[in-house]
Order: sequence, then C-alpha cells, then structure tokens
Amino acid sequence: MAVGTMPFPHMPPLEGVRLGSAMAGIKKPNRRDVVVFELPEASTVSGVFTRNAFCAAPVTVAKAHLQLAGKNGEVPRYWLINTGNANAGTGDAGHRDALTCCAALAQHARVNDAAVLPFSTGVIGEPMPMARLLDGIPVAFADLAADSQAWQHAAEGILTTDTRPKGASVTLTMGDSEVVINGIAKGSGMIKPNMATMLGFVVTDAGVEQALLDRLLRETVDRSFNCITVDSDTSTNDACMLAATGTGARIESEAHIEIFRNGLQRVMTELAQAIIRDGEGATKFVTLQVDQAHTRQEALDVAFTVAHSPLVKTALYASDANWGRILAAIGRAPVDEFDVKRVTVELGDVRLVENGGRAEGYTEEAGSRVMAEDEITIRISLGRGQENATVWTSDLSHDYVSINADYRS
Amino acid sequence: MAVGTMPFPHMPPLEGVRLGSAMAGIKKPNRRDVVVFELPEASTVSGVFTRNAFCAAPVTVAKAHLQLAGKNGEVPRYWLINTGNANAGTGDAGHRDALTCCAALAQHARVNDAAVLPFSTGVIGEPMPMARLLDGIPVAFADLAADSQAWQHAAEGILTTDTRPKGASVTLTMGDSEVVINGIAKGSGMIKPNMATMLGFVVTDAGVEQALLDRLLRETVDRSFNCITVDSDTSTNDACMLAATGTGARIESEAHIEIFRNGLQRVMTELAQAIIRDGEGATKFVTLQVDQAHTRQEALDVAFTVAHSPLVKTALYASDANWGRILAAIGRAPVDEFDVKRVTVELGDVRLVENGGRAEGYTEEAGSRVMAEDEITIRISLGRGQENATVWTSDLSHDYVSINADYRS
Repeated sequence: MAVGTMPFPHMPPLEGVRLGSAMAGIKKPNRRDVVVFELPEASTVSGVFTRNAFCAAPVTVAKAHLQLAGKNGEVPRYWLINTGNANAGTGDAGHRDALTCCAALAQHARVNDAAVLPFSTGVIGEPMPMARLLDGIPVAFADLAADSQAWQHAAEGILTTDTRPKGASVTLTMGDSEVVINGIAKGSGMIKPNMATMLGFVVTDAGVEQALLDRLLRETVDRSFNCITVDSDTSTNDACMLAATGTGARIESEAHIEIFRNGLQRVMTELAQAIIRDGEGATKFVTLQVDQAHTRQEALDVAFTVAHSPLVKTALYASDANWGRILAAIGRAPVDEFDVKRVTVELGDVRLVENGGRAEGYTEEAGSRVMAEDEITIRISLGRGQENATVWTSDLSHDYVSINADYRS
Repeated sequence: MAVGTMPFPHMPPLEGVRLGSAMAGIKKPNRRDVVVFELPEASTVSGVFTRNAFCAAPVTVAKAHLQLAGKNGEVPRYWLINTGNANAGTGDAGHRDALTCCAALAQHARVNDAAVLPFSTGVIGEPMPMARLLDGIPVAFADLAADSQAWQHAAEGILTTDTRPKGASVTLTMGDSEVVINGIAKGSGMIKPNMATMLGFVVTDAGVEQALLDRLLRETVDRSFNCITVDSDTSTNDACMLAATGTGARIESEAHIEIFRNGLQRVMTELAQAIIRDGEGATKFVTLQVDQAHTRQEALDVAFTVAHSPLVKTALYASDANWGRILAAIGRAPVDEFDVKRVTVELGDVRLVENGGRAEGYTEEAGSRVMAEDEITIRISLGRGQENATVWTSDLSHDYVSINADYRS
C-alpha cells in the first residue's frame, strides 16, 4: 500500500553526470538491482551515514573512501549501489566483499579504488552473492546515460520493499543562471533515520565548496530525513549523499546560499515525505507539528513519542480520532515539569484537547471527518516556549505486519 | 490470543480481607466491572503509580488519599476499582467524579472519604457513567467475601482487553508460622509500565512496617512490572498496591525480610509475566536477558530497544529467526562507545551472533527450531561489564492491529 499517487518527476540532465543500472539477479530476477553514478572530476561530494553501532560493511568503506578522498584531493566520482542484500552483519568477509566491488568498478572506470563509494540495501546477514554482483557491474557501467530515464531506472534499481521509485527535482534561478538539484531516495521500512535516510542520492550542477556542502547537507537532512519515522527502527545502512558538480553557477554569496539551501531543503523534504507516503503498509500520511516547546529537542521528543506509539498508529489506521491515545503518548514523552493543562491538540482544523481533557465543543463527528482523509495533520502546542519541530509518519496497519512477517520468505 | 494456558490459582483467605464485585454495566452488560477490596484496620498500605504526565483523575485522588492517610495515621482500608472507563483526560469533572465514588463507598463502609482509594481502567477520555457506577458500589459492597472465588471474581472485574483473569499466590514459612501473599493484576495493551503496571493489587497477612513495605514494593515492582512491555505505551492509569494486614507473622528480622522479599518478587513476577502472556494479540512469550552490561540501566536500554522494535516483534510473530533485525535494534540502543564485535546473541540454546555477524556454525534450521516454540528466550551479552537485566515482551501480530484498530468500535 502507499498513500496517494506520485509519478516520477522529470529530471533535467546535469552536465557530466551519468547513471547506469543492471539486472544482476542479486535477490530476484528481472529487476534492476545494481546502480552506478558517475560524477565529473571537479565535483565536491558530501555524505552522512547511519549512527547504528552495527553499521554495514559498505557504510564503513564509503566513509573511509570519502575521508581518504578528502585527504588526497581525489573526488569520489563513482557511487555503486546494490539492492537485494545489505551486506550488514557479515563480518570481515562482508568488508572484503565491499572492497572487491569498489575495485571492480574502479577497474572499468580507470580510477583508484578509493574513488568508488559502495552502498547496499536489502536483507541483513546474508553473504553477498559476489559472482552475480561482479557480473552486473560492467553491465551497469555500459548503461551510463544522462537523461531522465536513467535517473528513473536508478531510482528503481535501489528499491527494496518500496512500491514506487522516489525522485525530486528543482530548478533555481541564481541571477542570470540556473541551477538544478536532482535527487532520488529509497526506504519503506526500518525507517527512523539518525543523521541520514535509508539511501538518498542528490546531485546539483551548482559549484559548492566542501565545507559549505557539508554544512548544507547536515542542515537539510536534519529537517527532512531525520524527521521521518515509519517504525522507529534505525537501519544499519542509512546514507545520504550530496554532490555538487560545479558545471553550473557557484554558490558563494549569502543570497545564493539562501536560495540554494531552500531549494535543497525542498528536494530533501520531498524525498523524505515520499518515503513515508510509501511506508510499509501505510494508509495514512501523518504530519506531526509540535510547537510552543522549550527547545527544539523537546518538540522532537514529543513528536517522535507520538509518532512511535503503536496505539496512536493503529488508531490512525482505523481512522479513529482516539485523542486519549495521543494524550497518553504526549504524557509519557521525556519532558521535565510538564504542565499538561497547557497542552492543546488539534486534528486538522478540529480542536481535540485543552485543559488536560477533551476540548469543549469537540464532537466525534468532527474528529471522524478529519480522520477519514489520507493525509492528516496533528498539531500539539505545549504552551511552554517558542521552539517547534515537524515530523512525518505513517500508520500501523495489517499490511505492515504482513510485509514484515513475510519479508524473508 | 494468549500464550499457553493459565488457570486461576487457589487463593487462601486472608484474615479480615474481603473482596466484592458487581456488574454495573459501565461499558458492557453482564460482566463484572466494579470491585471493592476491604482491608483490616491494622494494615499498612503502599502504592506506586504511573509516571505519565497525563495521569488519570483516580490516580491523582488515590495518591492524595494515600498521603493524607499517612499524615493522619488513618488506613486506606478500601480500594474501589472499576473497569470500562479510565476516567483519564476528563479534566475537573473527572476529578469530581473520582471523589464522588470515594464518598459513596465511604458512606456504606462508615469510614472517612480518604480511607477509599479509587482506581479506573478502560477507555480514555469518556465521561464516567456515574449513575451506573454509583448503583454498582453498594452491590459490590454487599458482595464482600474472603474466599478464593471472591479473589477470582475481583480479578475478572478489573479486566479490559485481557482474555483471562490473572492471579498469583505464595505461602511462605517463617520459623513456626506461615505468611500468605495473594495478588491479582490486569493489563494487556498500553503496557510499558514506569514504576507500576496497569493495575496490580497484592495483599499479605504479614505485618510489615510502612517504610519497609514501601521499599519492598518499589524493589519488587522494579524487577517485575517495570520489566515488561507489550507496545511501549505507558498507561495514564498504572497503579500497583501492596497491603500488609498484620494478622500473620511480623516481618522484621533480616532473614524474614529476605524470605518475604523473594516470595513477594515471585508474586509480582508471575503477575507481570501473566500480563505479557495475555498481551494484546500475543502469540509468543519472549524473555530478553541482557548481561555483561556496564550498568543495569544500559542492560535495560538494550533490552527495551529490542523489545520495542516492530521489526523484531513481527519476526517473532512469523517465527523467523531474523537475527539481523535483533542486531540492528541492539545497534541503535543508547549505549556509548559500543564495540559490536564483543556482542553475542543466543536464541534459546542456539548461538546466533558473534564477532559482529552470524555465528559460525549457525544454521537456519537450528534458529527455526527454537522460534517454533511459544516461549522464547533471547540472551544478549554485551561483553563490557557485569550488570544484567531481564525484560519480558510479546510479539506484534495481526491481532494486535485488529484489537487496537477496533477497540472503540
């Protein structure tokens, strides 16, 4: 299931950026499962990765290569992604496999191994089917192309339990030139990113120097991928990459940084929201806005406590305006000296809770009207400060249980 | 659903302790839904309550009356419990209703209002059906009796989505006399107690002075009700009461305290485990043992992170030995400087994980054999210290979603 429809957008080609994919049969036949990104030599590249202590072998290698590149002035021009196998929990053998994949692509591309960053997603704890993967790499390399279809094929080639490819693109006007930001992402379950989503790949033709690129990636991921949750489970393989090829306008002035940041935030937020709309078993897309918090962290804590509550999530699935469960979840959030009488809760345009109980004038009919929608906004005002946070989540349905009880079979 | 069978145990009568129940039709007709406990005048009484900031009106009143009793030297001899309505999120009206209930019972029992402690469980946010409840109180009062059937009726009269009454009883030998501890509890969903379960009521005929009683209640709850979770949702109404009537042996010497503590722990743990066995939609009873932790809190953090993971819970439901999900959950637990290579995970007698990956010699067949059982133990050794913790949880099934998507309908 998935909420609403979401056609893959047109992605304008970026000079020097090519994408290729192959069907290597890693887990299933006849589906794209190996993807290669090629970036021009003058690119700057930034990445954020999972904070899960059990991070996967490709994450370890990608981080090491990215650091090495930074030291040697080399550009990590190739991103190699496979789906069907996460190469996580695979110990030393998994680490060697990730390095072997980099070396294989590097040989075809005639670059150093460290110019290749590996990413994997899929089942945890199975050894990589290396023969099939190594066969697929030259096929994906030979497929490299710059057009919108290549982006769509790449977006398809990184999916796992996702039901549709996810892309976002903006074109920004900077004085007399234009800048394009294209991004793709995947993710559907095991979604509670911590510094990064499952997998996100964003490329712009703007020129952005390294420190600024790093900062913009962190800032925009923090308000997009780090604000979504399907099931509170942080993946072992999360990564989000951002490259700036520099063939377009340079982003230096404060005005241009502001325009670029807003455009990048739009791409990141669209991709993050696309993951939630396609969350495992999702029948609702839920926006949780928490305001009047003492700190942003406090607002995030309340939002995530509500977003993770199985009882709130099943009530959303049932389209039941069960505000008691929302209130119980707010009440167990880690907030000091919480005066619950100041809290108000609104469901869409309907006031549910005030003065520690049901709002005066609230009717089940009004609540049910909002709950019947596919897209629902819950606004929680804490009445204790000026800070706020927005988090996006999905509901907990029978299909979520089916998908995850059957995933390996 | 529920795991295994669990006949209600025989409860020896305790001198001066009587229980009564009534069918007041609070939410549904023809079921016991009002319960009264009567304790002898010389009892000591202790209680622990939910830490949810949105605690229910009866919790506020019970805490206030318990404090007042402590000051006035009065004994809170009457406990009044209703199911079908939690009287939570009901604002000032709910507070008045809880006081009115106490006054009604106090009048029949000819005691001060503060000698009555009120407890409610059921749907949140609905006004209490006071007429029906006030009609039920004298009926329950007239029903007061000391026998085992009265205990069983009381255990039935406090259930919500539970499928069976929960009781536990031990008889301890103290030198030449015997001491009995009887307890009942309820709880099935919204179970992640914090200092107390949904509702637990334990009475002993031992004599225990107030400070010792308070300490023993906190200690034993901490290793029983505070170590269970069905769905991570802390209720607004949690409470666990312990009364010592003093008609039996006095618990004063270190040796007797030790025997009594162990017996009390057994009653508390049996009741807590009974809640998990009867967890909403439960098909598995899962024991999570975390050892070699640096601190007990760290062990609890890891255990609860795994116990709350929807992906682990759906794998348990599917009887799938998906150790990758267990490992991913351990990896996101809030543990500093976590060396994942030292972690081992065992499922029953089968080693799943070592050296950051699948254990050598592990086979799917071996994992599946353990997973096929109704009762499963997962042992996680962190390899970084001497502390440990045990947590009990259930799986996440289709029935959990059905029960909670349909609960109000």
